Amino acid sequence: MKVSVKVPATVANLGPGFDCFGLALPLYNIVTLEETVLPGSGIEINIINEKNNEGTNLDDVATDKTNIVYKAIELLYNFIGQTPNELKITIKTQIPISRGLGSSASVIVGGLIAANELLGRPADEKVLMSIATEIEGHPDNITPAFKGGITLSSWEEDGSVLYRKLPWNDDWKLMICIPDYELNTEISRSVLPKEVPLKDAVYNLKRSALFVDSLYNKDENLLKAALSDKLHQPYREKLVPGMSDITKNLKHTNGVIGTVLCGAGPAIAIIYNGINVAEIKEIVSNTWNYHNVNTGFLNLPIEKEGASIIN
Amino acid sequence: MKVSVKVPATVANLGPGFDCFGLALPLYNIVTLEETVLPGSGIEINIINEKNNEGTNLDDVATDKTNIVYKAIELLYNFIGQTPNELKITIKTQIPISRGLGSSASVIVGGLIAANELLGRPADEKVLMSIATEIEGHPDNITPAFKGGITLSSWEEDGSVLYRKLPWNDDWKLMICIPDYELNTEISRSVLPKEVPLKDAVYNLKRSALFVDSLYNKDENLLKAALSDKLHQPYREKLVPGMSDITKNLKHTNGVIGTVLCGAGPAIAIIYNGINVAEIKEIVSNTWNYHNVNTGFLNLPIEKEGASIIN
Repeated sequence: MKVSVKVPATVANLGPGFDCFGLALPLYNIVTLEETVLPGSGIEINIINEKNNEGTNLDDVATDKTNIVYKAIELLYNFIGQTPNELKITIKTQIPISRGLGSSASVIVGGLIAANELLGRPADEKVLMSIATEIEGHPDNITPAFKGGITLSSWEEDGSVLYRKLPWNDDWKLMICIPDYELNTEISRSVLPKEVPLKDAVYNLKRSALFVDSLYNKDENLLKAALSDKLHQPYREKLVPGMSDITKNLKHTNGVIGTVLCGAGPAIAIIYNGINVAEIKEIVSNTWNYHNVNTGFLNLPIEKEGASIIN
Repeated sequence: MKVSVKVPATVANLGPGFDCFGLALPLYNIVTLEETVLPGSGIEINIINEKNNEGTNLDDVATDKTNIVYKAIELLYNFIGQTPNELKITIKTQIPISRGLGSSASVIVGGLIAANELLGRPADEKVLMSIATEIEGHPDNITPAFKGGITLSSWEEDGSVLYRKLPWNDDWKLMICIPDYELNTEISRSVLPKEVPLKDAVYNLKRSALFVDSLYNKDENLLKAALSDKLHQPYREKLVPGMSDITKNLKHTNGVIGTVLCGAGPAIAIIYNGINVAEIKEIVSNTWNYHNVNTGFLNLPIEKEGASIIN
C-alpha cells in the first residue's frame, strides 16, 4: 500500500502572534509512504527537490531513524502500540528549507496523515495535531499546514492543540522574500530572552487582539496597526540583516499593509493589497543587495485547503 | 450654564487582556459642572454617595485643584489655551471607590464631556479620550466608560487611543462580587514585576487572541478557555485573599464561564450564563467568609450606551 499527502508551506507568528498565528501558502511538500520489503534497518528515506527548491542542499537532512518524519510516524505507531517496519518514505519538496516557511511542519504533518491512512485511520485529527506539535515544539505552523487558511493556535497544558481558523480578506496577498541563506530555527530561538519587559508583553497582547479584530472586520488600517511586535522580531533582526531597513523602506509604500518575519526567519513576508508588485520587489532587492543578500520572490495568495491525500 | 453627564462603571483587564480589554456596567456616576460665581479658589467640588455606595468613606478624596476631575478639566481648558475659572463640580457616585470598578475613569470621562459641552465642544471624542487616558494612565476603563459595551484599547505612541468595540453575547451576565475593603490601584500595580517570562507573555497573547475570537463567534467554551491570565492576576492574588480559592471553587459550577479580577481588584467578576445566581453567591460568600471578608453582590448585564449628557 502507498499513500501520498500534499501539505502546504506556512508562515508563522505574523508579527504580534509569536507561537500563535500562522497561515498557509500554495507551495507544497509531498510525502509518500509505502509499506514494502526493505533490506537493512527496514526504512528508506528519499528526499527530492522540486521547483523553487532546485538549489537546496539536502546533505544535512537525516535519512535514518533520526529523521523528523520518521520520528513523527514512530510516535503514531507507538500510540497504537506498534512500531513501524519496512517503510519507504519519499519526500518531494517545493518548500525551501530553513527559511521560516514551515518545511518541517509540512513533512511532519504529511508523514502523520499518510501513516494514519496506511494504518487504517486509528487516530483522529486531534491526536495527529498533538503528535505533530510534540515533534515540532509549537503548533503555529502545524495547524495551518493541516487546515489551510489562517489560524490561531495554542498548545494546551493537557497536550492538546486548541486552534481556530480566522477569516481572511482575499484582497490581501503575500510577497514572500527569500534571502539566499539558511537560518536554523534553534539558533533563531536562542537569541530570544527568557524574560521580557511586562510592557512589551502587554504591547503584544493588545496587537494580537487587534489582529484578530482586524481580520473579522476586514479592516486594513487596523491590520496595519496590529502587525507590529516587540517579543521576537526585535531580537531576531540581528540574524536577518536588512530586515529593519526593509520594514522602514516599505512603511509608506502604496499598498503595503505590513512586513513580518516568516516564522524564525530569514524569509520576510510582505502583506499587501494591490498591484504594486514591482515597486515592492525593487525596494526589497535593493535593500538586501546593500546588505550583500540576494533575494528570491514568491508572490502568493493564502492557501485555503490545507493538507490533502492525493492518491 | 450647567451640564450633567452620566458615565458607567467599567471592569478592565478581563483576565488575559491586561491594560487592554474593558466592559461597561449599568451602574453610574453623574458629574455636574456649573459655571458660577464662587469665592476663594474659584472651584467647589462636592461628592455625594448614592445607592450601593452609602458606606463609602469619601474623606480621602481631594476636593481642591488636585482632584482628578478638576485636573482632567484643566487639561481640556489648556488644550484650547484657557484655564478653568469659577467652576462648581458635583459628583454623585453609585460606583464604589477603589474596588476595581472604574470609578476614577467614570468621573474623569464625565468631567471632560461636561466641560467640553460648557466650552461649546472645542474637542472631539478622540481628544477627550487622549486627555482622559493621560490622567488615568491606561485606556482600558476609559473607552468602555465613553462608549459602553466591551472594548479593546491601546494607548498609541502618538498619544492617541486606538480602540474597537467588540461583540458580546447578551446571554452572558456578570456577577460582581465586592469585598468590604478597598485596594489602591497604585499598590495593586506595585506588585507587578517589571519583567515577565517570555512564555507567560506568549500565553497571554494567545489568550487575548482567543478571547476576541470567542466573542465574534459567541463561543462559550472558547471564552472559558480564553479567560485565563499569567501576567497580572497571579501577582495580585496575594492582595486579594481568597480569589484563587473562589476561581477554583467555581471552576465546575454550572453556568460559570470564568472568574476574573476587576481591574486592579479587589472586586471579582464572574461571567456566567444561566440562572445559577444563588449557588454562585453562596460559593463566593462562603469562600470569602473563610478569609474573613464580607461580600456585596451586583448581578448585572453589560451596559451598552456609555457616557451620556443627561441635561
